[in-house]
Amino acid sequence: MPQVNNLFAGIPGELPKELFQELLKTSHFRLERIVSHGQGSPPGFWYDEPTHEWVVLLTGRAALKFADRTDLAVLNPGDYLLIPAGCRHRVEWTDPGEKTVWLALHFR
Amino acid sequence: MPQVNNLFAGIPGELPKELFQELLKTSHFRLERIVSHGQGSPPGFWYDEPTHEWVVLLTGRAALKFADRTDLAVLNPGDYLLIPAGCRHRVEWTDPGEKTVWLALHFR
Repeated sequence: MPQVNNLFAGIPGELPKELFQELLKTSHFRLERIVSHGQGSPPGFWYDEPTHEWVVLLTGRAALKFADRTDLAVLNPGDYLLIPAGCRHRVEWTDPGEKTVWLALHFR
Repeated sequence: MPQVNNLFAGIPGELPKELFQELLKTSHFRLERIVSHGQGSPPGFWYDEPTHEWVVLLTGRAALKFADRTDLAVLNPGDYLLIPAGCRHRVEWTDPGEKTVWLALHFR
């Protein structure tokens, strides 16, 4: 019987840095769990990835900023989006009051 | 700005059958949302897939049965597992009291 794990388990009480954990990897994609607790991208930093990213926010709350927009995309539980490769974006903020758990699927 | 959708939105109030919706597909994987409301696999039916399946239960509750075991794997929100290709399994039951939302990643 396959082993059952839980996406909301094994999260340290204190998270001085965001937690990135690989759940699954093939030569075509990588699935990871990300846990944030108030962190955002450093000032001036933009993600500019060579791979596409499908990402869903499962708990908490966060805001993404895209380089071509002034407004933010505020994400609540269940919200998902596809960020194409080369689409410059950053995490403007995550909820400081609770853990934000994301699932991210990176692929070419 | 990429469009934001929600995994828990767009679910009909009544679900006479399970709902399978493709969220993303490449030549290497397929990501789908499944919504169940009390359904299970038909009596005697076994999934026997040529692809691997990583699956997570996000809301509700369900029990999986594997052909090589007599006990059930009861899944609660956040529980995930990797079901290898060719691993015979069935959904024994899903929660009749609320919607069970799954995210399934099928890949080779």
